[in-house]
Amino acid sequence: MREIIVIGIGAGDPEQVTMQAVSALRRVDVFFVLDKGEVKQELVDLRSEILRRYAKDHRVVVGKDPERDRGTPAYVEAVDDWRRRRADVCADLIATELGTDQVGAFLVWGDPSLYDSTLAILDDIQARGELSFEVEVIPGISSVSTLAARHRVGLNQVGRPIHITTGRRLAAGWPTDADDVVVMLDAQTAFTEHLDQDATIYWGAYLGTADELLVSGPLREVAPEIEKLRAEARERKGWIMDTYLLRRSEAKA
Amino acid sequence: MREIIVIGIGAGDPEQVTMQAVSALRRVDVFFVLDKGEVKQELVDLRSEILRRYAKDHRVVVGKDPERDRGTPAYVEAVDDWRRRRADVCADLIATELGTDQVGAFLVWGDPSLYDSTLAILDDIQARGELSFEVEVIPGISSVSTLAARHRVGLNQVGRPIHITTGRRLAAGWPTDADDVVVMLDAQTAFTEHLDQDATIYWGAYLGTADELLVSGPLREVAPEIEKLRAEARERKGWIMDTYLLRRSEAKA
Ligand SMILES: C[S@@+](CC[C@H](N)C(=O)[O-])C[C@H]1O[C@@H](n2cnc3c(N)ncnc32)[C@H](O)[C@@H]1O
Ligand SMILES: C[S@@+](CC[C@H](N)C(=O)[O-])C[C@H]1O[C@@H](n2cnc3c(N)ncnc32)[C@H](O)[C@@H]1O
Repeated sequence: MREIIVIGIGAGDPEQVTMQAVSALRRVDVFFVLDKGEVKQELVDLRSEILRRYAKDHRVVVGKDPERDRGTPAYVEAVDDWRRRRADVCADLIATELGTDQVGAFLVWGDPSLYDSTLAILDDIQARGELSFEVEVIPGISSVSTLAARHRVGLNQVGRPIHITTGRRLAAGWPTDADDVVVMLDAQTAFTEHLDQDATIYWGAYLGTADELLVSGPLREVAPEIEKLRAEARERKGWIMDTYLLRRSEAKA
Repeated sequence: MREIIVIGIGAGDPEQVTMQAVSALRRVDVFFVLDKGEVKQELVDLRSEILRRYAKDHRVVVGKDPERDRGTPAYVEAVDDWRRRRADVCADLIATELGTDQVGAFLVWGDPSLYDSTLAILDDIQARGELSFEVEVIPGISSVSTLAARHRVGLNQVGRPIHITTGRRLAAGWPTDADDVVVMLDAQTAFTEHLDQDATIYWGAYLGTADELLVSGPLREVAPEIEKLRAEARERKGWIMDTYLLRRSEAKA
């Protein structure tokens, strides 16, 4: 039976890989990569470095990542459609490149359970019933855990909840029932919509890499600095990945 | 300058330790442990196993964990008070047991950013201004990431938020603005308060250990099974640690 391992490889530092991930990496015959045709050469290099350090004899097979329709306002439908087309590509790669007694793997930045589509793609393929394989998941250190560690803060206040959401949603409003909000996938600096809140921000970009940026402080005071740093870094490198925690001490009516 | 490393050691499987944590463990002269005077001998053994595998020459110094007032309904105040008394104990241990050029460490189950008081205790001590040391935090694989990995699911639905909360809060009501709710610190099987919800539960106990238990399915259907398994396991072992994800596909009015 074919086996596919989905391996969380941490937020960007090869040292964030777990012992469990190292054992898994050593068992892999074929690594599957979807080529996004993007400029993030550094991420490609980082991934290669992880394979160089920890994997044994293996092949890397690259499929073409289908285009996602970013023009439509129907976000969920566009992502669903994209996932289906990615499933087509992956099913094809697995069927043609992975022997029936071999082990394949997908590497996932951070933790596979956080805003990543690999597991949904594999579910999709299995649901079609044409290709059978076992799936194992190795958890990884997420960008969220890395953010908290670098700022040396907890994500929650005593006995209180943590809300993890997207920039798109934060822009639409501060979530109800949560004073501690972690924001990912924010292309629009949505924190600037909440300068009326008495909040502290803990912001981090390129976490775990040599380019790591960290800023924290009262939201109103440091927001302009973050906007500036973020814009400059993005300009300089051509891309940015950032995450932040917004913490307010008391609920505002 | 004294250095204190707060090291996330994963949810229970020594293989969940990261390469970064291994390097950190190797640098530690003194490990500080607060003895909870509880029966979880297995957790003590697990921690010893991690030190045996990864640490070098070191001392383990044990302080007495002060009692927490579990009788009071003032949860936050009781925890705050408890933290202050733990800070007293830790400050004393650091001052008397750690040389000014040495490296001390606290090991934290899972990830130090999730419902753990070690960082708050160290902040407390530093705020007093009597003892100076540097703090470094090594993120760990949380029980939440482990839960998701073992069930091979993502924590979020496409573009949607994740709410992480406590059993106490879930019992008081399903959080607003979230269909995917992760529950920790639940001593009261709070999921049974929500059998009216059209939800799926992904439950896990003793994650990462040899006693791991996993159940998933429609909440209404599997709730009795989880209650039974949980009660039996708790009876048998004398303690339980469990976490779960509740997922509902559409918001209920
Ligand atoms: C598609 S999600 C994947 C998250 C990933 N699975 C994880 O566990 O971190 C991508 C988002 O994660 C966050 N992210 C991932 N890596 C990051 C890094 N190295 N530094 C800062 N944020 C990062 C950013 O918010 C980014 O928009
Ligand atoms: C004080 S919190 C600490 C959480 C920890 N820092 C983490 O990242 O997982 C303890 C709670 O975490 C969850 N937990 C910790 N370890 C677990 C395990 N091995 N299996 C299931 N749940 C666990 C349970 O909900 C438990 O009540």
